[in-house]
Amino acid sequence: MNIEALYHRAQSSWASANADKSVRIRIRTMLNDAQTIELIYGDKYDWTSTLQQTTMHKWISDERFDYWEAVVTPPFGRLSYRFHVIAEETHVWYAERWCKDAPYEDAFGNFELPYVNIADVFTPPAWVKDAVFYQIFPDRFANGDPSINPADVQPWGGTPTFDNHFGGDLQGVIDKLDYLTELGINAIYFNPLFQAASYHKYDTIDYFAVDRHFGDIGTLKRLVAECHKRGIRVMLDAVFNHAGRYFPPFVDVLDNGAASPYADWFLIHEWPICDTRGSTTYETFGFEPHMPKFNTANPKVRHYLLDIARFWIEECDIDGYRLDVANEVDHGFWRKFRELVKSLKPDAYILGEIMHDSMPWLQGDQLDGVMNYPITDFILKFMVKDVFDAREFADAVGGWMALYPHQVNETAFNLLSSHDIPRLLSSCQGNIDRMKLAVMFQFTYPGAPCIYYGDEIGLTGEGDPDNRKCMEWDIDRQDRDLFYHFAQTIALRKRHEALRNGMFRFLYAPSDSRLIVYERKNEHEHFIIAMNASPEPQTLDLPLPEGHWQDQWNSHTRLSVVDGGSKPMVRLQPYGFHIFKQTEE
Amino acid sequence: MNIEALYHRAQSSWASANADKSVRIRIRTMLNDAQTIELIYGDKYDWTSTLQQTTMHKWISDERFDYWEAVVTPPFGRLSYRFHVIAEETHVWYAERWCKDAPYEDAFGNFELPYVNIADVFTPPAWVKDAVFYQIFPDRFANGDPSINPADVQPWGGTPTFDNHFGGDLQGVIDKLDYLTELGINAIYFNPLFQAASYHKYDTIDYFAVDRHFGDIGTLKRLVAECHKRGIRVMLDAVFNHAGRYFPPFVDVLDNGAASPYADWFLIHEWPICDTRGSTTYETFGFEPHMPKFNTANPKVRHYLLDIARFWIEECDIDGYRLDVANEVDHGFWRKFRELVKSLKPDAYILGEIMHDSMPWLQGDQLDGVMNYPITDFILKFMVKDVFDAREFADAVGGWMALYPHQVNETAFNLLSSHDIPRLLSSCQGNIDRMKLAVMFQFTYPGAPCIYYGDEIGLTGEGDPDNRKCMEWDIDRQDRDLFYHFAQTIALRKRHEALRNGMFRFLYAPSDSRLIVYERKNEHEHFIIAMNASPEPQTLDLPLPEGHWQDQWNSHTRLSVVDGGSKPMVRLQPYGFHIFKQTEE
Repeated sequence: MNIEALYHRAQSSWASANADKSVRIRIRTMLNDAQTIELIYGDKYDWTSTLQQTTMHKWISDERFDYWEAVVTPPFGRLSYRFHVIAEETHVWYAERWCKDAPYEDAFGNFELPYVNIADVFTPPAWVKDAVFYQIFPDRFANGDPSINPADVQPWGGTPTFDNHFGGDLQGVIDKLDYLTELGINAIYFNPLFQAASYHKYDTIDYFAVDRHFGDIGTLKRLVAECHKRGIRVMLDAVFNHAGRYFPPFVDVLDNGAASPYADWFLIHEWPICDTRGSTTYETFGFEPHMPKFNTANPKVRHYLLDIARFWIEECDIDGYRLDVANEVDHGFWRKFRELVKSLKPDAYILGEIMHDSMPWLQGDQLDGVMNYPITDFILKFMVKDVFDAREFADAVGGWMALYPHQVNETAFNLLSSHDIPRLLSSCQGNIDRMKLAVMFQFTYPGAPCIYYGDEIGLTGEGDPDNRKCMEWDIDRQDRDLFYHFAQTIALRKRHEALRNGMFRFLYAPSDSRLIVYERKNEHEHFIIAMNASPEPQTLDLPLPEGHWQDQWNSHTRLSVVDGGSKPMVRLQPYGFHIFKQTEE
Repeated sequence: MNIEALYHRAQSSWASANADKSVRIRIRTMLNDAQTIELIYGDKYDWTSTLQQTTMHKWISDERFDYWEAVVTPPFGRLSYRFHVIAEETHVWYAERWCKDAPYEDAFGNFELPYVNIADVFTPPAWVKDAVFYQIFPDRFANGDPSINPADVQPWGGTPTFDNHFGGDLQGVIDKLDYLTELGINAIYFNPLFQAASYHKYDTIDYFAVDRHFGDIGTLKRLVAECHKRGIRVMLDAVFNHAGRYFPPFVDVLDNGAASPYADWFLIHEWPICDTRGSTTYETFGFEPHMPKFNTANPKVRHYLLDIARFWIEECDIDGYRLDVANEVDHGFWRKFRELVKSLKPDAYILGEIMHDSMPWLQGDQLDGVMNYPITDFILKFMVKDVFDAREFADAVGGWMALYPHQVNETAFNLLSSHDIPRLLSSCQGNIDRMKLAVMFQFTYPGAPCIYYGDEIGLTGEGDPDNRKCMEWDIDRQDRDLFYHFAQTIALRKRHEALRNGMFRFLYAPSDSRLIVYERKNEHEHFIIAMNASPEPQTLDLPLPEGHWQDQWNSHTRLSVVDGGSKPMVRLQPYGFHIFKQTEE
């Protein structure tokens, strides 16, 4: 056994508590090394008479490691535990302070989760794992009120540049809610709506106003109310890491220097202040002089930003915030932010833009979820760009899931397109079958899927600004077949809880192959899904467990019930998929 | 190379920021496996033109792993990084999303500390690493006011039982401050002082009153003022995990059941409430019916407990709290507690009683330090009980230090005796040389040492209650030689900053040996310390680096300057030590 490959620590993704006071324990071993792992646990104050044992299950793998899991409930809320790791020719007992071939008789040196305090448990809003988001870039979705068009508005459908406007607004969104209802989404993620200088509005001027070209607070109130009537939640984009160049307090600092009452709102290294690119004397987002970083440790700044958070929930009843560059703002600020937001709306969703390992923000005290860009990357590399084979894909996904507790994976925000990356159909070079396959994976994978406006009717676009074209409303120019694929996929996910909360596991993902099989399973439902990410038809002896299986949906034809246990041969069309569900029949 | 042994994650002990915005990065490799590790780092928004490289140093080891460190300063506060791990026959590039034999050209998949926010940096009070604590068990230290003796007071020096009283009080401590000043300590840790039923006072009745047998608030005020005059800080023991059986709100619950206004102050599973041992229907500390656990998630309870924390700082100007069973109270409570305490006294010390891996409490938002019982255990196993050989000792210490960032190790609370474990001299079976050696290690190791009252004059005692004997004030019955050893050891530590903030590293600790050599080093001072934890004299070819070395202090004779570089032979007496310091001469 490669003993040095073992890893566990009684924190973060390795030991996480659930709302029912059970605890999920994970351990890693070298790939294909350990055969059995027993988790031995009890109460440290009475180890001998409370100790119990459970066999862990091998949950997921990556290129080098297996990850094992067990969920146990400490009888008195206190968990003391150790592992017995058994390989073919050797075995080892593994605890916090020792790793050897025989354990201590008492609880000495065990790993400890000393007490499961419910107040500390990571509890994202329950609705998020049932949500299907739709991302709207306001200037480009629909123009419902030409009277507030920007002066330089371009004809709808023109070519986007880095600074032109097309007149999309909130009334336009209200007008199109029936369309969104038909599609089936139940949450909207809005790119910034607050008054700002640019068309994309990430350089805020007034955090307390709806941009005048999008409407006003009254319009947003109506929009949210109309959405709520239809069961659609509304999440706004908030930029708390930095302000825009024309944010009045920053303008005041530029004008009055160190004498400005706002001098300590920003992180200024040297006076006189210099805002020339490459020589800025203050901290910025990236190296962008037009985006001065807030000093969020300053209580006045905290107060100001928290007031914004409070304002939009109280005024317009919004359901969450997507936090731009969340990883560069201090943890202390996010703790205050969470406290406030949850006090106003306990089930508000707090979503951070973080593209790397986000565990430090997902301990229960800060964010509810993050934009899951690594999963985007893995899906694109396997299904769209042919960079990964099936094994590499499963390894990448497995390794990434293993970074997070189960609840974090369940409420991550999964996207395949956005205003920051090329549109999915363009990434697929126009191949609709590829696109449908990637979307089907997105919707049968844990986490809340998000559709970037227009993807569902075949909008194309490479990187910024081409990915921000106007929505196509001429039904004859929409890909209606694609629309129905999206609508059916959404309906499938909504119909089956196991696709939202079930355990996810790969069953088949060989090297040098483009076939994957994975399962989603909860107490009531069991799905096995096969996918062919190649342009050739493929056959596969499907490893269906014993029982009856219904071919629920596939990319091409409808099949009848098949018997499991016998590895039935499944024919997969190019970029085809089969979704099997266990049935009673 | 054992690639599966590599471990790094961009959080906790692996990547920790310092107050000067530098960042300490650690990585582990299999023992004696890697030869060189380069840390490559830069700014993710401009990777190519900002990237730099630094060679990590092999810092410490345990039984299976080497731990490497580097301290770097990200030029714009944002750190993107990867490792190049080089072994004899192979090498690998290691980042968050990949581990392979060639790196990406851009920052893709790197580890990230996205931004060093000073507000998040773990900053324990600066004075703690310079502190020498003295632990006082109030009923047993000194009786300065017989008028407040408990009715059943026993003659001073009698045999302690589980419930007798000896009349120690706060006036007694005031009377003995000159003694403590002579010893040289500069901080007192008091076992509980608040009104309680038992003699040990861990079962609080009134959190807002000094126990009437110890004095009153006025006495405590005078005591703290007298201490502060002498440069001695005062830390109180606070029990916030649970109350005592006779705490009025709990009595009210016992009397009035679910109708009590305090019913939700505790964690009661079933009514009618039952307080019979083994059948309690409420949560307790351990299985102790007399110690009902607080519901610290209840805002009323939080408010009540925080008022206590505020009261003693505001009323008596105390300098810190030692928090009983800190690990079983919710993290959210400790965050509020820290916020309050630091707002009242920014350099107050918040010390938790946690005996296992405490990283979740030491992220900067909760505790400043923990009682370092594992280090106690390791020192006793090597120097006192002959359970560990030198290698096992160094491995245990190394593995434990590697769990924590540098600042955490610097301000941990290191003890060799306490009211919960046998006295050091008794553990040493009366062998004073052994005891002196263990104490010398304690005082030359990172972290704040604490002396349990009376250890310094040779008080003995096995476990509770024998370890709680009355202090011996008859100078003829005190071990004055031992007292001077303590006083000199304290003075040595106070005189040399490197013994308090210098890097700690083992230089020599072979298997089957009882000899260790270690160093403490900062920019100004460099110590090399050799110890012989055996009853036989030993000689050692000391690995002194080039330069001049002064034999600063040893356990038996005073030596002259020796030249380094030549491995001078050092003779170590039974349980002897030599402390060499680099000099200019």
